[in-house]
Amino acid sequence: MNIEGFLFAAVEAGVRYPDRKDIGLIYSELPCVAAGVFTSNQVIAAPVVIDKKRLEQHQAAQAVIVNSGCANACTGEQGMQTALRISKLLSQELGVEDEMMLLSSTGVIGEQLNLAAFESNVKNLVSCLSPDGFEDVAKAIMTTDTVHKMSETKIRIGEKDVRIVGMAKGAGMIMPNMATMLAFILTDAVIAQPILQNMLSTENEKTFNRITVDGDTSTNDMVLLLANGKAGNAEIDHRNKEYQQSFQEGLAWVLKDLALQIVRDGEGATKTITIKIKGARSEDEAEKIGRTVATSSLVKTAFFGEDANWGRILAAMGRSGVNFSPDKVDLYFGDVQLVQNGLALGAAAEKSASEVLKEKEFSLTADLKLGKADAELYTSDFSIDYVKINADYRS
Amino acid sequence: MNIEGFLFAAVEAGVRYPDRKDIGLIYSELPCVAAGVFTSNQVIAAPVVIDKKRLEQHQAAQAVIVNSGCANACTGEQGMQTALRISKLLSQELGVEDEMMLLSSTGVIGEQLNLAAFESNVKNLVSCLSPDGFEDVAKAIMTTDTVHKMSETKIRIGEKDVRIVGMAKGAGMIMPNMATMLAFILTDAVIAQPILQNMLSTENEKTFNRITVDGDTSTNDMVLLLANGKAGNAEIDHRNKEYQQSFQEGLAWVLKDLALQIVRDGEGATKTITIKIKGARSEDEAEKIGRTVATSSLVKTAFFGEDANWGRILAAMGRSGVNFSPDKVDLYFGDVQLVQNGLALGAAAEKSASEVLKEKEFSLTADLKLGKADAELYTSDFSIDYVKINADYRS
Repeated sequence: MNIEGFLFAAVEAGVRYPDRKDIGLIYSELPCVAAGVFTSNQVIAAPVVIDKKRLEQHQAAQAVIVNSGCANACTGEQGMQTALRISKLLSQELGVEDEMMLLSSTGVIGEQLNLAAFESNVKNLVSCLSPDGFEDVAKAIMTTDTVHKMSETKIRIGEKDVRIVGMAKGAGMIMPNMATMLAFILTDAVIAQPILQNMLSTENEKTFNRITVDGDTSTNDMVLLLANGKAGNAEIDHRNKEYQQSFQEGLAWVLKDLALQIVRDGEGATKTITIKIKGARSEDEAEKIGRTVATSSLVKTAFFGEDANWGRILAAMGRSGVNFSPDKVDLYFGDVQLVQNGLALGAAAEKSASEVLKEKEFSLTADLKLGKADAELYTSDFSIDYVKINADYRS
Repeated sequence: MNIEGFLFAAVEAGVRYPDRKDIGLIYSELPCVAAGVFTSNQVIAAPVVIDKKRLEQHQAAQAVIVNSGCANACTGEQGMQTALRISKLLSQELGVEDEMMLLSSTGVIGEQLNLAAFESNVKNLVSCLSPDGFEDVAKAIMTTDTVHKMSETKIRIGEKDVRIVGMAKGAGMIMPNMATMLAFILTDAVIAQPILQNMLSTENEKTFNRITVDGDTSTNDMVLLLANGKAGNAEIDHRNKEYQQSFQEGLAWVLKDLALQIVRDGEGATKTITIKIKGARSEDEAEKIGRTVATSSLVKTAFFGEDANWGRILAAMGRSGVNFSPDKVDLYFGDVQLVQNGLALGAAAEKSASEVLKEKEFSLTADLKLGKADAELYTSDFSIDYVKINADYRS
């Protein structure tokens, strides 16, 4: 996978572990307009603090340096100085302004980031830059991910083809410490920055913010979106709704594709389940109910057990804090209706529903019959391996 | 364990499974003043609906009938009629007004309760009533509990000894369907009902509502408190603060003792952890932070893995929705300080903390250093057996 004007590199720097590529670099030959969304956690890693500030001030970027092995979170002033030093080193090596560097880390919390690993590798990293290194970087950011995650799409803006590509790492812990979700999205579109940021925020809400593996939110989560303008399309700005819509649809597709790849590769996950809440009074309420179901340990262990255990689902909905009428609710697994107006349809329906649960991917639909709003959440099951992965001592 | 004026019975009725005592009866020779607290879930089982209404209307009760095997939740009008029929049968057999019966169920959701099991056993149940049957009832309400749970204390009110006894069943699923928490507290105190209800609500918040095994809330949770007045003490009412305080302390002791027994016997639990949040601006904020830590799958799997993984704890605190300064936080396992002002104290401290985590019961303290409020939560670890228990198909 490559995209015009962007170069990539990844090296084995020994940030924390030997013999794996653990620092990646994404570099754009041209300055990019840039957008980002960041963790809502109050405990925020140093690179997140820096990137938020830089994007607020400049709405632009030209390089993203990312490491696995160490989150550089809960590292205080020393951690901040280390991150700024890395930015400066990279900026000098690339010959690009410091403020155009973005930083990203994932890994153990509370340990200082190994500055020496960067000092001795930045030169090498920059010299390795190549149009073909996309996959290398996608692999360098993996932690307990079992597969690397990439996505791409092409849209038409006026006379021009515009591409959107992305990579992500999943809600896996590093050795095993912290679920971090990182995604880097690149496009060659010519696009106004406020629109780019707005679309990223909007579509992020419906994709990455709708997935859950374990309900925890990292100190390091971020999605960055860089647009270098190489496609030469007529600028996507507030004047042209059609261009906006095309780009937004393409972006939504890539974000959802990456989000689902993350759920599929969730720690210990054996199944991917789409939770559809229909007939709500508002999307907010639908989302709130869906999230309660999608994060319930009881529901997720039942999925793992392939048990069409609708009582747990209704009980989770009931504690979501959203008012609804339990005696109106219809429930479906896939296309099989299991519950009508809050009551079980019987053994035959349950048997059919159990067949659906044997699939690797399926949907659960709850129809509240109160209004017209809906929301989809994406979750994995809760398996024995999840506990094994997360109970292993860091070593 | 027995308490004057109360009689108990339990029978093998075959509500859902053969060869186990599954209907229990608590009967008071005298009408009792009664108080109750009930599930906050919107999906509410029929017996909960009935009990709430009866206690609101009469603030009194004389009998509690409880079954395991079926929750009588999500059973619609038929479920309600079954519950009312059981109440009527019991009322006739006891020769006590129908409105003085309280009902309680735990078990599978969405299946109709087996009325025939009650019809053929109510007479037998009443004939078995004895002062010595307390433990039999405590056993009849068990589901995946591995031990039955009882507690007692004695307090002094003026010239008289007053006793408070209780039984509870834990947040275990039935075969395995629903985490239900039931507790029945009995006292021989002479006490004004508004005070009884108020104390139960207050102390329930600090005990049963502060425990978590899996973060789910049942459709059937209830705590009932009956006072028969046999102790002949001067009435505990609003006029005597000293009597109130003595009774409240005794009640708090029994509730907390039962609550901790439930956590210790949590599904798959190998450890019991007290989460202490100190130095908060308000008890509400302390409680909210503590609950987020106590329900985090990442924190709970780390406890299972005996991993002093403080990064997960700070990250959970950070997503609690409460504002605090991460760079002020001190963390302790037991008496061992691991983190000061948001930064790790180093390898030696972590090694000592890891020793604490090998204990069966220990505390985790987070000091926010913002104010004077605190709160304690009680949680278990998240083990491989938890998943096994909850992934098994109902059969």
